[in-house]
Amino acid sequence: MTKLWGGRFAGDADPLMARFNNSIHFDARLWAADIEGSQAYAQALQQAGILSPEEGAQISAGLDRVQAEWDADRFQIQPGDEDIHTAVERRLTELIGPVAGKLHTGRSRNDQVATDLRLYLRTMIDELAAHLAGVQQALLAQAERHLDLILPGFTHLQPAQPVRFSHWLLSFFWMLQRDQELLAGARSRVDVLPLGAGALAGTPLAIDRQALAARLGFSRVSLNSMDAVSDRDFVAEFLFWAAMVSMHLSRLSEDVILFCNPHLGFITLADAYTTGSSLMPQKKNPDAFELARGKAGRLLGHLAGFLTTLKGLPSTYNKDLQEDKEPLFDAIDTLTLLLPVLAGAIATLQPQPERMAAGLDDFMLATDLADWLTAQGIPFRQSHHIVGEVVRAAEARGCTLRQLDLATLQAIHPTFTAAALAVWDFERSVEQRGAMGGTALAALRGQLAAARTALLPAPGA
Amino acid sequence: MTKLWGGRFAGDADPLMARFNNSIHFDARLWAADIEGSQAYAQALQQAGILSPEEGAQISAGLDRVQAEWDADRFQIQPGDEDIHTAVERRLTELIGPVAGKLHTGRSRNDQVATDLRLYLRTMIDELAAHLAGVQQALLAQAERHLDLILPGFTHLQPAQPVRFSHWLLSFFWMLQRDQELLAGARSRVDVLPLGAGALAGTPLAIDRQALAARLGFSRVSLNSMDAVSDRDFVAEFLFWAAMVSMHLSRLSEDVILFCNPHLGFITLADAYTTGSSLMPQKKNPDAFELARGKAGRLLGHLAGFLTTLKGLPSTYNKDLQEDKEPLFDAIDTLTLLLPVLAGAIATLQPQPERMAAGLDDFMLATDLADWLTAQGIPFRQSHHIVGEVVRAAEARGCTLRQLDLATLQAIHPTFTAAALAVWDFERSVEQRGAMGGTALAALRGQLAAARTALLPAPGA
Amino acid sequence: MTKLWGGRFAGDADPLMARFNNSIHFDARLWAADIEGSQAYAQALQQAGILSPEEGAQISAGLDRVQAEWDADRFQIQPGDEDIHTAVERRLTELIGPVAGKLHTGRSRNDQVATDLRLYLRTMIDELAAHLAGVQQALLAQAERHLDLILPGFTHLQPAQPVRFSHWLLSFFWMLQRDQELLAGARSRVDVLPLGAGALAGTPLAIDRQALAARLGFSRVSLNSMDAVSDRDFVAEFLFWAAMVSMHLSRLSEDVILFCNPHLGFITLADAYTTGSSLMPQKKNPDAFELARGKAGRLLGHLAGFLTTLKGLPSTYNKDLQEDKEPLFDAIDTLTLLLPVLAGAIATLQPQPERMAAGLDDFMLATDLADWLTAQGIPFRQSHHIVGEVVRAAEARGCTLRQLDLATLQAIHPTFTAAALAVWDFERSVEQRGAMGGTALAALRGQLAAARTALLPAPGA
Amino acid sequence: MTKLWGGRFAGDADPLMARFNNSIHFDARLWAADIEGSQAYAQALQQAGILSPEEGAQISAGLDRVQAEWDADRFQIQPGDEDIHTAVERRLTELIGPVAGKLHTGRSRNDQVATDLRLYLRTMIDELAAHLAGVQQALLAQAERHLDLILPGFTHLQPAQPVRFSHWLLSFFWMLQRDQELLAGARSRVDVLPLGAGALAGTPLAIDRQALAARLGFSRVSLNSMDAVSDRDFVAEFLFWAAMVSMHLSRLSEDVILFCNPHLGFITLADAYTTGSSLMPQKKNPDAFELARGKAGRLLGHLAGFLTTLKGLPSTYNKDLQEDKEPLFDAIDTLTLLLPVLAGAIATLQPQPERMAAGLDDFMLATDLADWLTAQGIPFRQSHHIVGEVVRAAEARGCTLRQLDLATLQAIHPTFTAAALAVWDFERSVEQRGAMGGTALAALRGQLAAARTALLPAPGA
Repeated sequence: MTKLWGGRFAGDADPLMARFNNSIHFDARLWAADIEGSQAYAQALQQAGILSPEEGAQISAGLDRVQAEWDADRFQIQPGDEDIHTAVERRLTELIGPVAGKLHTGRSRNDQVATDLRLYLRTMIDELAAHLAGVQQALLAQAERHLDLILPGFTHLQPAQPVRFSHWLLSFFWMLQRDQELLAGARSRVDVLPLGAGALAGTPLAIDRQALAARLGFSRVSLNSMDAVSDRDFVAEFLFWAAMVSMHLSRLSEDVILFCNPHLGFITLADAYTTGSSLMPQKKNPDAFELARGKAGRLLGHLAGFLTTLKGLPSTYNKDLQEDKEPLFDAIDTLTLLLPVLAGAIATLQPQPERMAAGLDDFMLATDLADWLTAQGIPFRQSHHIVGEVVRAAEARGCTLRQLDLATLQAIHPTFTAAALAVWDFERSVEQRGAMGGTALAALRGQLAAARTALLPAPGA
Repeated sequence: MTKLWGGRFAGDADPLMARFNNSIHFDARLWAADIEGSQAYAQALQQAGILSPEEGAQISAGLDRVQAEWDADRFQIQPGDEDIHTAVERRLTELIGPVAGKLHTGRSRNDQVATDLRLYLRTMIDELAAHLAGVQQALLAQAERHLDLILPGFTHLQPAQPVRFSHWLLSFFWMLQRDQELLAGARSRVDVLPLGAGALAGTPLAIDRQALAARLGFSRVSLNSMDAVSDRDFVAEFLFWAAMVSMHLSRLSEDVILFCNPHLGFITLADAYTTGSSLMPQKKNPDAFELARGKAGRLLGHLAGFLTTLKGLPSTYNKDLQEDKEPLFDAIDTLTLLLPVLAGAIATLQPQPERMAAGLDDFMLATDLADWLTAQGIPFRQSHHIVGEVVRAAEARGCTLRQLDLATLQAIHPTFTAAALAVWDFERSVEQRGAMGGTALAALRGQLAAARTALLPAPGA
Repeated sequence: MTKLWGGRFAGDADPLMARFNNSIHFDARLWAADIEGSQAYAQALQQAGILSPEEGAQISAGLDRVQAEWDADRFQIQPGDEDIHTAVERRLTELIGPVAGKLHTGRSRNDQVATDLRLYLRTMIDELAAHLAGVQQALLAQAERHLDLILPGFTHLQPAQPVRFSHWLLSFFWMLQRDQELLAGARSRVDVLPLGAGALAGTPLAIDRQALAARLGFSRVSLNSMDAVSDRDFVAEFLFWAAMVSMHLSRLSEDVILFCNPHLGFITLADAYTTGSSLMPQKKNPDAFELARGKAGRLLGHLAGFLTTLKGLPSTYNKDLQEDKEPLFDAIDTLTLLLPVLAGAIATLQPQPERMAAGLDDFMLATDLADWLTAQGIPFRQSHHIVGEVVRAAEARGCTLRQLDLATLQAIHPTFTAAALAVWDFERSVEQRGAMGGTALAALRGQLAAARTALLPAPGA
Repeated sequence: MTKLWGGRFAGDADPLMARFNNSIHFDARLWAADIEGSQAYAQALQQAGILSPEEGAQISAGLDRVQAEWDADRFQIQPGDEDIHTAVERRLTELIGPVAGKLHTGRSRNDQVATDLRLYLRTMIDELAAHLAGVQQALLAQAERHLDLILPGFTHLQPAQPVRFSHWLLSFFWMLQRDQELLAGARSRVDVLPLGAGALAGTPLAIDRQALAARLGFSRVSLNSMDAVSDRDFVAEFLFWAAMVSMHLSRLSEDVILFCNPHLGFITLADAYTTGSSLMPQKKNPDAFELARGKAGRLLGHLAGFLTTLKGLPSTYNKDLQEDKEPLFDAIDTLTLLLPVLAGAIATLQPQPERMAAGLDDFMLATDLADWLTAQGIPFRQSHHIVGEVVRAAEARGCTLRQLDLATLQAIHPTFTAAALAVWDFERSVEQRGAMGGTALAALRGQLAAARTALLPAPGA
């Protein structure tokens, strides 16, 4: 009787089929959730009068013993254990005898596995939220440490305008803060009890599902048993979150990798987060960030793949849904490693002020010159055009903008006066942008305060 | 001066390059949002003292005239109009002269287009939420109309247990209700003002961004200008929503298409939502649902594609982001048609009670028989095994379960008594499942009430 | 000196970073390819005069010993072994001393890993081609065994026309035959030697790359070293193949799952490829096919994910490429299990002739009736319309088509004569379709012969 | 009788449903293929004795007239034309009367649309192959023009080794050459005739399908009618090709965008392929390449989406397949514009030799120094370690490698002699790499010759 469902079958499964069908090699990690769910379900059965108090106590004590074996890493998976649910019930039966067979009354693996997965993922989400906060904290700390450094700001990867280095760092903080919002939303949809849905039609027992939900810490109870057993939207939503956070980290990594190129050289990385080459002795490669960038593809793949699997299904439970776990677990494992690694790599990166300063060139102040003209009453569209001519003049002479003398400027447009030359000042440029969200110090201090308020407590805090 | 940025350029764009670069053929639909954003921005410029009251009035009146041309479908797109922003400003300049050139002061297309897109999408989300509610309403109305019909319930597409037809309908209601939740979350992240971020560094003007946000109905203001101009997370989140809702509709369609197959025949569709064959005169095909199913692939593709585009980007604005609009607009258009079509097709489908009844077979009551044994004190695991033998006995004889007489049952297990034979009753079976979320009428009534409460007002309501 | 690249580095990697960076836990399976590549490279170094014959012999013997350890499952991976290349070279050094350090002369891990991966994949492709042929063989054998059974043919999942069951089986044969073509094409692009490309610039040694290719059995040599080290197109192409073959198997599975539903019941599956339910004792679920269907999503996800990773890369080697192996290996493992399982499940499925016969209804002969009219000279478009009216008449009376008497037909159109009634014959209908590719026996025999010719030898044959 | 299938239907389609169902707005472009297919089919019907010679001549002349209307842009699509097939047949009927109704004898839209799509795609593939050759030609011409320029070669975006600029250009040539191979393979699977498959069961007429194939220029005939009507593998394969070629162009674009950043400045782009900023007057952005990079996401999305649609299908024709055309057409249109734009942008880019020279630094010669040591008999692994120490010494002193005097080198390892200092020569470094595929001039000349041989004739040639 190793199988939970063997009664009506004449032969054994084909051995390859058994390997194909079994999930114990990846779902064993659900053991704690499975036992937690069964403990609560045993109590519900007892309250519903299905188990006597003695039976309830026996089962509960038996589950404690199974848990102790897992805790001590002594649990032995047997060849017939097709999944974690079978394994736990099989061991429980060995420990306490046939009364173990009462635990599954009114329950199906369909509602059991959905419950286990939600319990497990809820815990993992809380851990990942803390890891994500760790990356945010590293960005924030660097921003505070290097608040006033000025960085050449790019758009289209072309020099655009000077911005504060801290402003650049915080731009990623807010991407990740949106991810915190997304994750909180996803958590609220994980936080729903499916147990009591049976195979698809609901439970015939007088189970108090709201009490059961309370016991397992679920905020909501699923209201339709057919939906409950096949709802894996929460997995898809989590995978979308994983794709989004890794996409953000990929964008960060793209900038970091570029800034580490010695032609820019705006930052250097700690040796601990780089590696060398087996051939080229001088190499110091930003592997942490390259891997982060590459793994965004992997996580997007999990999302696309699982949505494809879901999309092809009729309603209720279909075995295709067994494909929910591997992408989910891989996404969790990937981010559980990636997030702390990036937090460490960000916390230890060193900005290179002299390289940033060398990277600032006057052309990045062209907009400031146009703004100056506009302040003299020239419509901006015309100012933009005039400064375009100034830029061409400088390029034609092979000089920078500030090397053009006033006469040259006035030849292009008579509005220019000596006062215009005040714009050739990067510090002035960034300090002009003091409105909310801008790169001036005052705006940045407001941004930092908002970020501090938004930030979750860091891991271990 | 047809281009907004032409000052520094010596030659013209290659004509193919111009076609490749231009977006007017797909972004023209943003005209209303563009004008709305410019009206509010003009007011902000006036409050900041950049525009005089006269200039502000001129611009506002000019924008009204441009809007009137669009409203009346009289706006003429010109060859040089590379995008909607250029087109509107070009026309404004024609109408009111050089003062139009003041409108772009301190503004970049980077923050302008992000603002337009958010304004537009916010409106579309509200419309789509109503269309989605229309599908939910159709499901709910059918469930109420056919509350007590019993349907053969499948798992793995194999007969499982009887369920109410209304329970099946409502299982999709709740999928779509989760989509309503997702959409509300997405809306809250669309609802953020980027305007005032400039190209990337913030605005040098004394723009009151919170007042600007209030004027445009935005609840939040972006706090980092570098993030603001390149944040398209809201597009990705919307595309995820579109993929999820279409995935749900694909699952519904899969069931409907199957149920329309005459071998099952549980439902028939109105002629208005089916089509025929050019070759086979008897055909009546469930095209609406097949198209719905197929389009889930398309919408998943938009999500995967756009995430891929985002993933490859460095920070701030890069031209790659122009790829945000076509998948977004196509997703909106697809669902704007798909949702009402499915609402109509669902509202007009006819359940076939006699075919459902014919589809019920005693094997679907095997669990009830096991439950009966369990209620006599036999551990469920053993009951399951005993009933497995009962099933084998019936299959061996080529009869249904109820055709096995009591003696046969007792030969399999002595616990069976005549009382066990009461389980051969489908109505009894579904009524057993009365706990929250189950398929008994009492539970269904609770479910219906919860659904009614959850439902948004239907479109036009 | 455990790291291959440690010379210039001051500190150790962060321990989490080391875990993040290491690939030994998944690339160890490349050991045989790595040793094969090194053996050939050692010979090339010797021919180029870099190694003396004694050194070459020492290295070769040492590699043999390393291989023997792997063969005997005695190889010990050490904590510092970041990847299989490091592990093999570390062990070689332990066994033969510093001369081992000459093996990497002029070689980079960049060209080494590309070579290993191509050697490994080439072998796996040959195995998978045989596994795929096994599925084709199972389809072919079933088609031959049940050549003349008639199946209700569906389009849009609605009854369309009768077809032979063997024709249905063979329709999947040809999908898989296209996959064989695709796989052969992919193999030809795997079959290119990158070794000798160095890190990116080519080798400074007088390596005869064509001789090296011949030694390793490669048909072509990469012609550009920068391309050679970062070309993973062959991985993407293989993943596309995996997605295609699994998509075809998903379509097959969709049909099989449907045909196993008792309302159709056209086939039954062997117990060995089905499973039961933990709750419902009567269940026999087509798990093998459901898992096949679900895994198509997973494999599509690997393709989308890896293309996304590639798409974001600049040229030459970037660490992101380390993400090539896990999706590739998972695709190989998934199909190495899935293909034989499906071959077995197909080989053991039982068609149910009486259920197929019961599924044939006269409406599926409506086209034959239209064809009969057309043969009398009525334009087909009109014939189609006339038969549409015949269908409506039958539906109105609630009868089948053959139950309409001749008078009724003639009332609809005077062309009908008693000869028309000969069309009410399913055997006649399929035998009408005798042109190439049709479902008549003669055409089927031609199709079978073509399939036999196309088929690769089955595995083990 | 506007619909091809209306006979049995009582009511009209819901108007929204009609819009949802119709495809004329995107499939009209198939008109030429549709007429070509019908012309050939009419001949086949005549040969099979279904049409008299007079009828055949009438239909053929009528189709010529329809074609003339399309050619002259005078064809009027009518509201009832649900697709191009309906539109053409409707117009033919108007022009020649009821005999037009004989054209569809034995044909279904299922085999008709598959035929049209293959005819159309075959033509488009030939055009796209030429466009792709245009990009290859641009790369080749630039490589020939700037054969000996030396570029700082990167791996991990860190300086690695010097390579020829032409070698870098050609690395992309070979990526695209693989795409030519893929496209040729895809074409061979497009090149199969489905016509004669009917709706699913084959044709009841004595159509000579091989003659029909020959008439339409198809090399193969589909051998299974059920497969023929639902095989869209060729669309998926084309979309995979589109994703691959755009992925390659994205990688090229990533390099070009980076090289255009003034901190590197290795190349400049022609004004005709760049654009400016609406706000920042100095900007010159590499939009052509950014768009190319972004569009790779879009094309990957089409692949993922369409595979998802296919994956969910049962066998034979299902309406979901109507989703094949929009991604296919968009992929064709995107590449038809993108490829010539990039060809132009590549043909007109200007390398900046002095910036490349400035970008070469001695650390890129560290491998050459290690090679020198190895040539003195030191095992490479040890040489690598020694040079690692040399690198650290230079970094500690803040000097370049060549600024270390011989004494310093000898203090690190006694093997160093004055001869070692010859390695500080970038030209010498690249010329060392003369083996096949390397970056030395001799190897490059061989590579160029191979590329010339491989290249298809350029468009218009």
